This record gives sequence, C-alpha cells and structure tokens, in this order.
Amino acid sequence: MSQLLPHPDRFLPPETTELSIARRIYAEVETKPIYSPHGHVSAALLAENSRFPDPAALLITPDHYVTRLLHASGVSLARLGLSRDGQPSTVSGREIWREFCSRWDLFLGTPVRAWFESELSQVFGLTKQPSSADADSLYDQIDDALGTDEFLPRALLERFDIHVLATTDDPADNLAAHRTLRDDDSVRTHILPTFRADRYMLADHPDWAKSLAELASAAQIDCGTYAGLLAALRHQRAFFRSLGATATDSGVADAGCEPLSDAAAERLHRKALNHTITPDEAISYRHNMLYRFAEMSSEDGLVMQLHPGVIRNHHQPTFASYGPDTGHDLPDNGSFSRPLIPILRDFGTNPQFRVVLFSVDETVFSREIAPLAGFYPSVFAGAPWWFLDAPSAMRRYREAVTETIGFSKTSGFIDDTRAFCSIPARHDMARRVDAAYLASLVAEHRISEEDAIATALDLVTERPIDTFRLPR
Amino acid sequence: MSQLLPHPDRFLPPETTELSIARRIYAEVETKPIYSPHGHVSAALLAENSRFPDPAALLITPDHYVTRLLHASGVSLARLGLSRDGQPSTVSGREIWREFCSRWDLFLGTPVRAWFESELSQVFGLTKQPSSADADSLYDQIDDALGTDEFLPRALLERFDIHVLATTDDPADNLAAHRTLRDDDSVRTHILPTFRADRYMLADHPDWAKSLAELASAAQIDCGTYAGLLAALRHQRAFFRSLGATATDSGVADAGCEPLSDAAAERLHRKALNHTITPDEAISYRHNMLYRFAEMSSEDGLVMQLHPGVIRNHHQPTFASYGPDTGHDLPDNGSFSRPLIPILRDFGTNPQFRVVLFSVDETVFSREIAPLAGFYPSVFAGAPWWFLDAPSAMRRYREAVTETIGFSKTSGFIDDTRAFCSIPARHDMARRVDAAYLASLVAEHRISEEDAIATALDLVTERPIDTFRLPR
Amino acid sequence: MSQLLPHPDRFLPPETTELSIARRIYAEVETKPIYSPHGHVSAALLAENSRFPDPAALLITPDHYVTRLLHASGVSLARLGLSRDGQPSTVSGREIWREFCSRWDLFLGTPVRAWFESELSQVFGLTKQPSSADADSLYDQIDDALGTDEFLPRALLERFDIHVLATTDDPADNLAAHRTLRDDDSVRTHILPTFRADRYMLADHPDWAKSLAELASAAQIDCGTYAGLLAALRHQRAFFRSLGATATDSGVADAGCEPLSDAAAERLHRKALNHTITPDEAISYRHNMLYRFAEMSSEDGLVMQLHPGVIRNHHQPTFASYGPDTGHDLPDNGSFSRPLIPILRDFGTNPQFRVVLFSVDETVFSREIAPLAGFYPSVFAGAPWWFLDAPSAMRRYREAVTETIGFSKTSGFIDDTRAFCSIPARHDMARRVDAAYLASLVAEHRISEEDAIATALDLVTERPIDTFRLPR
Repeated sequence: MSQLLPHPDRFLPPETTELSIARRIYAEVETKPIYSPHGHVSAALLAENSRFPDPAALLITPDHYVTRLLHASGVSLARLGLSRDGQPSTVSGREIWREFCSRWDLFLGTPVRAWFESELSQVFGLTKQPSSADADSLYDQIDDALGTDEFLPRALLERFDIHVLATTDDPADNLAAHRTLRDDDSVRTHILPTFRADRYMLADHPDWAKSLAELASAAQIDCGTYAGLLAALRHQRAFFRSLGATATDSGVADAGCEPLSDAAAERLHRKALNHTITPDEAISYRHNMLYRFAEMSSEDGLVMQLHPGVIRNHHQPTFASYGPDTGHDLPDNGSFSRPLIPILRDFGTNPQFRVVLFSVDETVFSREIAPLAGFYPSVFAGAPWWFLDAPSAMRRYREAVTETIGFSKTSGFIDDTRAFCSIPARHDMARRVDAAYLASLVAEHRISEEDAIATALDLVTERPIDTFRLPR
Repeated sequence: MSQLLPHPDRFLPPETTELSIARRIYAEVETKPIYSPHGHVSAALLAENSRFPDPAALLITPDHYVTRLLHASGVSLARLGLSRDGQPSTVSGREIWREFCSRWDLFLGTPVRAWFESELSQVFGLTKQPSSADADSLYDQIDDALGTDEFLPRALLERFDIHVLATTDDPADNLAAHRTLRDDDSVRTHILPTFRADRYMLADHPDWAKSLAELASAAQIDCGTYAGLLAALRHQRAFFRSLGATATDSGVADAGCEPLSDAAAERLHRKALNHTITPDEAISYRHNMLYRFAEMSSEDGLVMQLHPGVIRNHHQPTFASYGPDTGHDLPDNGSFSRPLIPILRDFGTNPQFRVVLFSVDETVFSREIAPLAGFYPSVFAGAPWWFLDAPSAMRRYREAVTETIGFSKTSGFIDDTRAFCSIPARHDMARRVDAAYLASLVAEHRISEEDAIATALDLVTERPIDTFRLPR
Repeated sequence: MSQLLPHPDRFLPPETTELSIARRIYAEVETKPIYSPHGHVSAALLAENSRFPDPAALLITPDHYVTRLLHASGVSLARLGLSRDGQPSTVSGREIWREFCSRWDLFLGTPVRAWFESELSQVFGLTKQPSSADADSLYDQIDDALGTDEFLPRALLERFDIHVLATTDDPADNLAAHRTLRDDDSVRTHILPTFRADRYMLADHPDWAKSLAELASAAQIDCGTYAGLLAALRHQRAFFRSLGATATDSGVADAGCEPLSDAAAERLHRKALNHTITPDEAISYRHNMLYRFAEMSSEDGLVMQLHPGVIRNHHQPTFASYGPDTGHDLPDNGSFSRPLIPILRDFGTNPQFRVVLFSVDETVFSREIAPLAGFYPSVFAGAPWWFLDAPSAMRRYREAVTETIGFSKTSGFIDDTRAFCSIPARHDMARRVDAAYLASLVAEHRISEEDAIATALDLVTERPIDTFRLPR
C-alpha cells in the first residue's frame, strides 16, 4: 500500500456502501482497552468499593445530561431528587425512575438515549426500552443487579477493561483514595489524580480565603501571600505527580493569560484578602494565575487541559436553590488564538509544555483550535465534549480539524463523565463515529483502508497516551 | 419495537439507501394539514377575497427573496417594479416577469427556485421552466388562472388545507379583517393575529411619537407616559387575544433586556418625547421594553417570538429610494445566552411564559439556542428561517440541535412568508427535509422507523400546536 | 430538460450512487484550461525560466502549508531549511526531504498529502509514497527530473495548460518580468500582475516611510503628502493595468473603511512621518486607505480582493527568528457586514466597482458573505482558501452559500499558492469537489444533470473570467 496511486475517483462520492469498510475498521478497535484521561468518577467510590445506591441515584439524579432535558420539559429538579435549599430530597428513587421512563421519548435522537440503550442492555442486561408500563420492572432488575458483587465498582472497572482512569481533584485533596488504590495490587487500572486549581484563581470569590486556608493546610505552606500560594500549588503538583498525576485541568471564564509582575500580583493578592480587589483586578489576577499554571506545566510537565468559555450557573434562582452543576452551565463564544498569546509566546515551543484545548463552541474547531495545534508543537486539539460529545457533532469535529492537522494533533476521546456505568458506551460511540469518518475517507479514496485502520488504533491507544503522557 | 436492541451497526454508515425509509416517513406527513404559526400574509387579502393582481405583482415585486438575487446580478429594483422615491412604478408586470424568466438560472440551487418549481407546477399547473422563450406564454397562463374563482385567496386557502394561519399585526390595528374572517362561517382556517410591537420600543426613532399617538387612539389610553404606554400595550394584547392571538413577535437589534425601574423608564420616556434621549438611553429603553414584553407574556400567556440580530437596511441609498424590506436586511452575529439572562432569570421557569428563539446566524444553534432550550422549560428552538429556510441549512439545524434537545423543544416549521402561493411548497420542503433527516437516523440505527414516523407526525402537528399554543 | 417536473423524491436521500453522476460532471471539466486569478508564483521565475532548485527548496522549505504541520509535530523550522536570524541554512535539501518523508503520516487526511500525491505522481511520475525507506530514491528521481528541460518553469506552465496566471506584486515593482513575458511570443499564458498595496496603509509600521520612498521613486511622485501618496498609487495602478492587471489584493487586520476628510488624512500622514501618530490614528488612517482603494477601483475597474481577519505572526519568537509567512498566521473572527458599510454605501451598486470577499473564518460564509453577495451587485463570494481549501471545507462552503446566492456570485476556484507544481493538483481537487457537490444536488433532484454540467463548466471558465475581469 505504499504505492502513489491517486485514485481516479478521489473526492467524488462513494461507489459502494461505506458500511463494510466501517465495520472492518471498527472491528479492530471494538474491544481495545479504555484510556480515560479526563473524567469525574470519584476515586473514593473505587477505593471504598461499596455497592452503588439505587438506580435513580446511580443513573439519573447526579447526571445533569439527563436532568437538564427532563427539566426543560417541565419537570422540576426537586422531583428528580436534587436537594433543594439544602433540604434532602424526599422523592424516592422509584418515583424518579418512573418520571424518567415516562419521558424516555424526550431523548430520541440524543446521545443520552444512545448511552442508556447501550448501558441498560450491555451492562445491566435489560431487554426493554424504558416506558411508564415497564418502569417498575426495569427498576427492580437494575436494583437487583446492584445488589450483586458483579456490580461493585471495582468489578465493573475490571469488566469495562479500563486501563487508565483519570479523576479530577482539588489541590488540597490528600488523595487518600488514590493511595489506597495504588497500594492495592488487585487494582489493575491506573487511577490517576488530576490537578484542578480553578478556585484558587478567583480572588473575588467569597470563598477564596477559605480555599487558600485549605490549600495552606494541605501543603503546610502559608498562602497569605501570592508567593506562598504559588509555592503551595507547586508543592501540591509535586504531590499529585508522586501519585501518578500527568495532567491539570482548568475551567476558566476566558483564556486570557497576561502575566503580572510578582509585585503587582502580590499587591492584588493582598487586596483580595482585604476584600478591596475590584472586578477588573480580579480578572487580571486570574489571567496571571493561568499564565503561572502554564509556566508550572512547562517546568513539571503536567499536561494542561484548558476549557474556557462556559457561562456557569446561568439561571441564578436554580443555582440558589440547587447549587452548581445542575444543568444550566451554557456555552459562551469561544476564543483562543488572541487570548492565549502570552502563554504560547513564552512556552508554545517548549517541549516540556503541553496544552489540550477544549471548547463547547464548535466554531473554534476550524478557526482557532486546529490552526493553533497545526503550528505549535505544544498545542493539542481536545476531543469534542460536553454539548458536543454526540455522533453528529463528533463527525463535524473531525471534518473541521482533520484537513488542518490530520489526526496526530488530536487528543483521542475523553468521556468527561461522572456516570461511571456509561463509560464503555461513550467510548464505544466515539470508536464507531471515528470508524465511520475514516470509512468515508477510504470510500472517497482520500486514504487507504490500511491507513484508516492504523489511525483508528492510534486514536484509541497512542493518541491518549501521547497527548496526556499516560502510563502504558 | 419497545425492545432494547442497540444495533450492532449503530453510528456506522447506512447499509442500504435511505430513500425507501425517507419515502415511507414522508408519505405519512405529505398531506397533513398546514399549521402556519408565523407569517406575513395579509388578513385583509383574505377578508376581501379579491382577485390577485398580475403574476409579477403576485410573485416577484413584493418578495425580497426573489428581488434580492436579481438585484445582485445587476437588475435595478426599479426594473422589478419597486416604487422609487415614492413614484409609482411604470414597468409593466409582463416586463418584470420577462426579466425574472431570463435570469431563472441565477436561482439554480436556491430554495427560491425549488419553491417556484413546486408552485408553478402544482398551484398553477404549468409544465415548462421559466425562460426568455417561454416567458410570455407562462405569464398568460398564470394571468388567466388568476382571473378564475379557483384562484381567489380563500379558494386557495381551502385548497392548501391550512388549518391555522397566523398573521403579523401592529398593536394599533383594529383587526377588522380578523373579525370579518372570524365571523364568516365559510372560513374554516383559524386566522390568528400576532402582536408585533417593535416600533413602540424605538424611543429615538423619528416616528416614535406618532406611533404612540396611533396606539393611544386604538387603545383609548394616553401613551404620553411610560405607564400609559404599558397600559395601552396590555389593553391591546387582551384585544388581540380576544380575536385568537396566541403569540407576539419581536424583531430587535439585540436581545438585551435589562429592566429599568418604573421611575427610570418614565424619565427616558419623557426625554424621548422631548427629543433629548441619547442613543445609549434609547437602547436602555428598548432593553427594558423587551423585558416588559416578557413580563406581559408571563402574565397573559402569549408566546413570545424573538428574532434579534438582523442589520436592517444595510444599504442606505436603497433604503432612501425604495424603503424597508427591499432585500438588504443582513444577518448580524447572533447572541442569546448572555443578553437574555434578565428575562430567563425572572420568567425562565414560569410555566405561563414561553419564548421561541429564531436566528439568522447558524452558529448559535448548537452554541446557544439548543443549550438554552435544553434547560429552560420556557425556551423553544425556532425553526431555521429567512436566510436559513433551505434544505441544506434546515438539515444543519437538525444536526446542530437534535443531539442536545431531541425534537420536543423545537418549534416545528414556520414559513414566515408574504408569498401566499408558496406556503404549500415551503411546508412540503420542510417535511421532506425532516423525513430525510429522520431516515438518516433510522439508517444509522439511532432511532427506529416507528419512532421516526411518530416524530415526523409530531413535527407537523403537535409541535406547532404545543409551541405556539394553537387551536386544534 | 426545460420541463417543470418537481421530482417526487426531491430533497429525499439519493436512490443510487452519486458517483456515476459525479464522474460524468467531472469528465466535462477535467481537462479544461486553468484560470488562476490569485496566487503567489513569481513572475521572475517564469521570465528567467531557470531550473528549479533541489526538491526540498522547491517543495518543502518555502511552503508554510507543509512546514507548519512538521513544526507542530516538533521539527524546528531550522531543520526544514528556514533561515534563522538571518543566517543561511546549513541543512541540506536531502536532509530536509528525509525529515518530510519520515513524517508523511502526519499529513494523512489533509489536502497537503493529496496535493503531494497528485503532484509526485502526475508531475514527477513517481510511484511510491514518501517514507524513510524510500526518501533518498524519491529525492533522486525528483532531482533528476528538475535537471531536464521538461521541468523548466515555462515547460511546466505549458504542460499545466494555464490560460491565465495572476501574480501578486508590490505597487513599487517595475514589473520587468511581466514585460519580458508579455513581449515573448512563446509565452501563451496571460501572466497578469496584481496590485497589493498593504504596506502603504500601515502608517505606524517602522518601514512605512521607507515604503513611501520606494513608491515615490517608482512613480516619480513625491509621497511626503497624503495627496502625493494617493497620486502615486493611482499612477502605479494605471501602470499595472497597462501590463494587464485586472485586480488588486488587500490583506487587512479588519475590514473597517470609514473615510476621512482629505485634511484629516493629510494631518495623520504628517504625524506618521513625524512618528507621532497614535495606534488609534494609524487604524483610522488604514481604514481610510481601504476606502480610497475601493474608490480607486470604482474609477479604474480593478477588481478588489479583500481578505481581512488574519492574525499575522502569532508567535513573536518565531517571527523574530524566521520572519513572516512561516506558518503562524492564524484565523481571526471574520466580520464583513458592519465594517464594510461605508464602501458599500458609496460604491456597492456602482457597476464599475467589484469586490471579492475571502475569509478564513467559515462562520461568515452563510452569515455575511453570501447575504452581502446576494444583494450587492458589486460583491462576490471568494472561494474558500488557505485553511479552508480542502475537500470537506470546500463542500461546506458550497453548502453554506449556494442556497443564498446560487453559483453566479461565487468567484470560482483560486489556488493562492506559491507552490507552482501543485497548481494542477489544487484545481483538479476543486473540480472534483464541485462535481461531487453538484452530483449530490442532482441525486436529490434539486437540479438537473444538464444544469449541473453547465454549472461545472461555468465554474472553471466563466466564473473566474467574469469575477476577475480576465482576458479570454
């Protein structure tokens, strides 16, 4: 297949069905182990290895992908088991499950339905679609399964064949669960902490001083000064690395990163502690912190994951009643090329530095992320995620970035989920969508089937390992 | 079909042609009655039921979809029959029609051509494509048809099987035509007024005081104060509702809606009447009015239709000569999530309140409109319209929004047209495009054909009824 | 085919493969002569007709499409033969070629690989794909070919069947090479200069005064005043036109074009020469100059090509070491409709004026460029270029603009390349992608095959001739 034979039909439409090609590609990756370098499964869940709670508490209530569309159809979050105004929910798991089953049709055409179909069928062995009529029987079947040892978290971890699972953790975390898991020879998955320091950047947040105190206590370094905060963060990064961390995660309002002089930053730090920092100064402080995170990454090699451009807690009344992560974080306009100039100017060609860019605004895929990743050796195009982790959107992502950066500068799939049981379904969907995309390139004679298969394999194994510096 | 059977080929490309599936889906909706909840047909036209004027005055001159592309190819608007500088056109209908026919190829690949093909063929029974050679003969055939009773407006209304037709009306309108139509038992279509109060928001517009005077006269409530204006608007909304209105319509430069205190709004109202309002104050006044419209909708249940982001009258010389709506309104950057915060904060979860969002910037479909409609029970994703009411754009819309909100939070098709005879062609195109999209989901084993058919039916009947609170 | 027969399956998916249709369309255009109205081939190269240098200096080092992705994978620009800090490169052509061949897989799925496949195969007659194993042998084969008369620039120009080739030239250029080529009867290609006056607009650039001096010398008109600069530019435009120029080219940071009074512009000109112009004033000066360029185009009929919205030299350290055009020019947010108002207000309906709009932000295709070209007779939608000149992006362009403007207001393909040997491959790719798109319209019964073929022919011949006012 090393012949140069530009096909006479290249770029013209396919002659035959792409399905047989796609099937062959997919067959090569279908059962490969899962690398999950970015997600929100709790390490404690795995360390404790306790039984999962009831079906609703496992599958509905904590998953804002599910609750948001139920809410959009008129179901209050309280009826879905979310705690309101600090009061524990009194709605039973069975009632929540019935609510979900009665509105199953809402999810038609969404990835949530597809994940549930895979998960209910392949993890729990159910055979019927959710409906009001079958709600109770399905509930009982899942509940029964959760009572068995085969459904303990670690049994599932093994069954799902997850080779690497990265969690998301606060820098003040003592990582006790990660230590337990590391020291347990029966755990064959690499479970890696990820350093997410967002709250230390927000100098005008009411809880900022409290956050500093917690970090100071964890690192045993006073954070009353800016220099102290940087030292504590560096200390904790080293601690995270000692427990296997290979990456950090930063969710910021925007990607601005203009550095400040130490003196200027120190002055803002003091003003923030005195509650006299202005909103603009707090932004400058945050921008400088992002720059410092990149600087630290260029020193210690932790891969920086960056996802700016989300409007958090869009509906204040819901936030006030139910708290954060309840489905009303919304995409903002994405912007990378201009705001990231300071970081890329200073670390963009530093071989130690690496940054993976994620967006919920798909216009940036072809306009900013691919062009950046197509020049800077340190920049990688993160997989489409959150609102965009669905078959058509994933396809658009590949179509938007491949012509600029091929496959080598894309991150490979990340599941980004707190829904543990959906992990195999999510990775499987991504493998299928990539197989379909690769098959379309083969069918249009853009690439050979041999190259397509090699690429599919690369995307599920080498891309995540290389991008996130994962253990093999 | 209630079995959980995630297909082994799901998300892979289709094995067989999607056409047979699409045909079966389309066959189920092809002849269903039309619900047209948003358009610009004149109620007076139907009340008077007079013969349509000549073919050009019916099909060319008033339709900026048609004239804009002719103008772009170098034909002056005057040659297309538009009145220039207040002078009546002296170009004959036949000359205008010839101009159009000679440039028929300009429209290749556009929906305008597709609508004409359907309309000329299926409404007028023509068999030949427009061309210079056949222009006169086609003109005569249409003109002859227009002279017959079968082509009177109400005969067509019946023939088109339009179950609901919403018009667009000024709050100062006395709705005499709507009353006539309501009281005429031979009219089986529900013809509903829509409350469009744009001009009352524009406090620095030279005609604003005149607008207030007209509203005051209609409502018999003095509009010299802000409180009076609100009272008059409320009064007229109730009047519109008494004649069947279920919705309002707001076309605004942007979706900003920060409320003002009554005292502040009253002060700006006074300044505007004294012609001392500044441009920034006029914007504040407009933003407050948009908020008040939402507040009124939350009280009276009229569905708010909102389409911000159009640059009106881009070419001032054309506006000066020919007036508004002459083809140079252009899309602006769309923005919803941030500017709409005040309205959604206060009414977003109010079950009485409902807002349908339309855009001519398709980047907002996946980034803003679907995420908003995917959380807020009050928010619905309006159909792609205006520049985007064409097969490929409609498909992109479905692909952009379905994975976030499924189908239940989409509005169903709206034709938004002043070209009465094109209504069936436009609805038919939308039904075909949706059938094709649904067939693609079936072919990729994302949904069952049974669900696809149910969804297609839902989109032409229940979605518009539910979204716009229409009579059955 | 002039019958009006809206197909019963229109807008539904295709019944049969589109390939046979696409093949028939492509066959009609495959061997048509090339019109290249916008590119960066050097006229001197053709006038001198010297042998091309070694394979790397021909194919790798000067082409930032190639070097940027190699750089993104960690290869320094110095290793690719780029001159660093003014020092000539010491890396041999063979070493550079080996580097490229060893990383051939990086380009999988990109147009660069596709162009290379065509070019190596069809221009150089190679049969093997680049790889480390075959690097030397491929190098030798290309190098041998370059030593033969068949590979002299003019022999290739003839072989490529290029009917028109526009270069890009500085207004101070004496166009000696163009004169030589014009006066040589053996040159059958029309080789036209293009007037690119960007540097004269940048009044705060350190080299601005030097630029003025060069222009003054070329035009023999003093440029110490704004009036003098305008006169010199007008003089040189006439000179360019005398040598066949039909177009200008403007690459600007943004499309702002608010005119200044002569007195105000003169004042800024003086301040710039005194180095006292502020950044905001320099922007005003540039905006006024863009307006003046449009004014001149409306007088002399040179077609204005406009491509705003590129962030030049994003990575300052690379710019400092290697200079401009080294792969880190990045797309900015595109914006046309608002900033272009002054030019379009004053010249938008002037039949002498014509502007072709290019963008590297594809969101503007449906939102701004097509709507503008769909009203203004002077505005044409430029082909997708630079980051977007690849099969999937070209297809998205057609899908984004056709429904608003059909085909007649699109420019036809431009190759925009400095890689002379890639010209046939690039035009061939565009013809194939357009054939595929047209076939999809035929297969969905949106247009007839006869119209599709006529359109394909129009796109390769009449569109560029008409848009750029080219000689036949």
